[in-house]
Amino acid sequence: MNDPNGLVFFKGIFHLYYQYNPLELVAGHQSWGHATSTDLIHWKNLPIAIPEMPTGQIFTGSAVVDNNNTSGFFNGVAGGGLVAIYTLNEPTKEVQNVAFSHDDGTSYIEFEGNPVLDLQNPNFRDPKVFWYAPGHRWIMAVALPRAHQVLFYASRDLKNWSFLSAFGPAGIEAFQWETPNLNEVPIQGTNEKKWVLIVGINPGAPVGGSINQYFVGNFDGTKFTPDDSAARLMDFGKDFYATQTYNNTPSGEVIEVGWMSNWQYTQDVPTFPWRGVFTVPRFLSLRQNPTQTGDLLVQTPIALDSLHDKTLFNGATMLSPGSPLTISSQGNSSFEFHTTVIGGDKGRLNINIRNAAGEQVTVGVDWDHDGQVYVNRGQTTGFNNPYFTNDFSTWNSNLDQSIELRVLVDRSVLEVFVDDGVKVCTSSFFMQHGPPTEMQWVAENSPILVEDLEAFSLKSIWR
Amino acid sequence: MNDPNGLVFFKGIFHLYYQYNPLELVAGHQSWGHATSTDLIHWKNLPIAIPEMPTGQIFTGSAVVDNNNTSGFFNGVAGGGLVAIYTLNEPTKEVQNVAFSHDDGTSYIEFEGNPVLDLQNPNFRDPKVFWYAPGHRWIMAVALPRAHQVLFYASRDLKNWSFLSAFGPAGIEAFQWETPNLNEVPIQGTNEKKWVLIVGINPGAPVGGSINQYFVGNFDGTKFTPDDSAARLMDFGKDFYATQTYNNTPSGEVIEVGWMSNWQYTQDVPTFPWRGVFTVPRFLSLRQNPTQTGDLLVQTPIALDSLHDKTLFNGATMLSPGSPLTISSQGNSSFEFHTTVIGGDKGRLNINIRNAAGEQVTVGVDWDHDGQVYVNRGQTTGFNNPYFTNDFSTWNSNLDQSIELRVLVDRSVLEVFVDDGVKVCTSSFFMQHGPPTEMQWVAENSPILVEDLEAFSLKSIWR
Repeated sequence: MNDPNGLVFFKGIFHLYYQYNPLELVAGHQSWGHATSTDLIHWKNLPIAIPEMPTGQIFTGSAVVDNNNTSGFFNGVAGGGLVAIYTLNEPTKEVQNVAFSHDDGTSYIEFEGNPVLDLQNPNFRDPKVFWYAPGHRWIMAVALPRAHQVLFYASRDLKNWSFLSAFGPAGIEAFQWETPNLNEVPIQGTNEKKWVLIVGINPGAPVGGSINQYFVGNFDGTKFTPDDSAARLMDFGKDFYATQTYNNTPSGEVIEVGWMSNWQYTQDVPTFPWRGVFTVPRFLSLRQNPTQTGDLLVQTPIALDSLHDKTLFNGATMLSPGSPLTISSQGNSSFEFHTTVIGGDKGRLNINIRNAAGEQVTVGVDWDHDGQVYVNRGQTTGFNNPYFTNDFSTWNSNLDQSIELRVLVDRSVLEVFVDDGVKVCTSSFFMQHGPPTEMQWVAENSPILVEDLEAFSLKSIWR
Repeated sequence: MNDPNGLVFFKGIFHLYYQYNPLELVAGHQSWGHATSTDLIHWKNLPIAIPEMPTGQIFTGSAVVDNNNTSGFFNGVAGGGLVAIYTLNEPTKEVQNVAFSHDDGTSYIEFEGNPVLDLQNPNFRDPKVFWYAPGHRWIMAVALPRAHQVLFYASRDLKNWSFLSAFGPAGIEAFQWETPNLNEVPIQGTNEKKWVLIVGINPGAPVGGSINQYFVGNFDGTKFTPDDSAARLMDFGKDFYATQTYNNTPSGEVIEVGWMSNWQYTQDVPTFPWRGVFTVPRFLSLRQNPTQTGDLLVQTPIALDSLHDKTLFNGATMLSPGSPLTISSQGNSSFEFHTTVIGGDKGRLNINIRNAAGEQVTVGVDWDHDGQVYVNRGQTTGFNNPYFTNDFSTWNSNLDQSIELRVLVDRSVLEVFVDDGVKVCTSSFFMQHGPPTEMQWVAENSPILVEDLEAFSLKSIWR
């Protein structure tokens, strides 16, 4: 599976549809798979919701709650229902289709008037639709990939769409723009919000292949205008693409789920008999940053407290060079930790996440190089591919000596949140001799103060 | 050594000053080293031209030919002389200083009215000055690093400078902006030119650390206005920074020299008893690209025909999977090749540049992934560092199946020019068991047509 699709909260349930090939372990026969959750942590996988059609594959799209029956699909149904808006990938062109569900999202009925948008263009996809309350209408953001543009359309009924404006090229053009998302995102410490446009770029990420970039600005109901012309990436790793945000969240929170892979190698990763994994759901907010001019997007992973199993470490410690601290995950290969670390001018901290055979991924903090943070996944032998970049790093947006880290480890995936999630590295890794079972904390050159380290093993979400 | 400085052509000689520490193998005691050339290929190293001062280090700057004695430094001297404009790095601030040479660039005399610019700012550096003929005055581009801005100033005499405008933030902000360069660059196939602003960013390159970005637009003598708000990088590797262009070139060509390293690891590379290397000089031009909206910067390395020694290969060949082609460099570890390769849909070409011990760097072309080009330097054992990223890749800006490559190999440095130099990967590498002595051309999955491969070993430029 690949892109998350149709993320929507409806009748107490978070739906997570996704790009799914039911026949092979590579992309093809694209259909909408389906999972649901009540807490965004425990999931139930369900039968395919929208299968491939004879006329084409069901590509990425979104879902909305049409609770006022603007579409007319829900005559006589109190509270309305779910409408999916997706790309039909036909042999010669991509068009936008609509389908509606009369069973609360389990299956969808195709609108007989499809397509609702057709530019006779082989590259025109990934509609993200949301209700724009001030204008009393639906807004669609959809990609014109090779033009490096996001097109905006408006509709009163989800069937008839009128063109509003185009945004782009801007930021990083790359080869294609995909999977746009437009959301009003809260600014931390205020009651204000700003609009954030997220755009997937593939291939052509500076680190190679697929990645998401974002623009902060204003949407006036017709046109998106960025605050500045800076280019900003959502991740400094290589496994964060096609992120999508939830519609209709309970309190208006902006919650995203990203696909944790990269088109450069996703069809080759050694995870038989499955391929494809999602990030944990993350809350989006904006933060003014002292070393940057614009507001920066912050990604905060959902709290996993309900999964906490054993406490692996709780407290502070001073690490000395030559005396590593080893923390066992007590037999569990899923664990998380949160810490603030403080080092001296020449210090370096390596947190090696290891298995018994010595394969490891490393999260490092380097005060000798401006507090840069790095992630290395090269000390693993389970996967060899010319695009499987081993080394990632980001600069430090703080100006003091303390670095805050939250790290999630789940067998073959790593999510690193730096400085409360202003910088994120999402990274898969493949150990040949079994998943990680311990952490080794190593100080180099000078002592490192580890403040308030809390580490927990995590219970499985499955029975 | 690090940044190239004061690049200027004067009286038949190309001067290449450079950031130089005469006392240590790491940055410090910064002075202007000096080399000269008449052909941009063979160089003569000379004594330090501007030594560190008691008041501070001599940071990056530029040099101009003041042939009309606008400065008054050359009264009675026919043809005028060289003026250097550089940053003096004082303990609490950085200021811009001027010095002039009465011996054609061998040594410089400090202007008694220094500094010529002082913002009382600890981060204000890297003035690039050039003569702007339409305005009959000098223009300076200088970085305000932490504000992610380039400031423009004008002067009639190189001593008194008036503020014109600021550009930025734009593109990739990163932590600091440095070493700006503004040039009018020819558009290929036309008689037109456009202005290109080059900006160094460090740390904070998407691949980590230091890299150059560029903006294409217009400069009206006062203000630089980019054509669009796209962010574009000059290199997809990690070893191209602080590039500077020549002033006063014979025919107005725009010629740059870049520093081939990265602040993340430059002070650790294993090249005792020296550290620091420059790219070959490269000519800049602009090209309209079918898959992009703006003009793209093209870097064309200077022709090395005068260094050609032995012909290692000349002709076409069809590579079959399982039958690699090995080309010996005939005892020389400096060589270059140019080729156009054509592969089928599932094909992949690996060009392994190897030593006898099997250490290798690879340049790959991957038709199975949209014709992406990758460079891997990980199969080498001479250097281990968390920032020494092994894997780089770029998307294919062509839409056909043929890929043009020009590759320069010089012992421990690699310069890869893709698609006539629209994409460039500049990369150092460190082999423990000696420099490369052969190339192994390997086709995977399907036959690869190698058209017009010309490979030559290169004579040393030194006696």
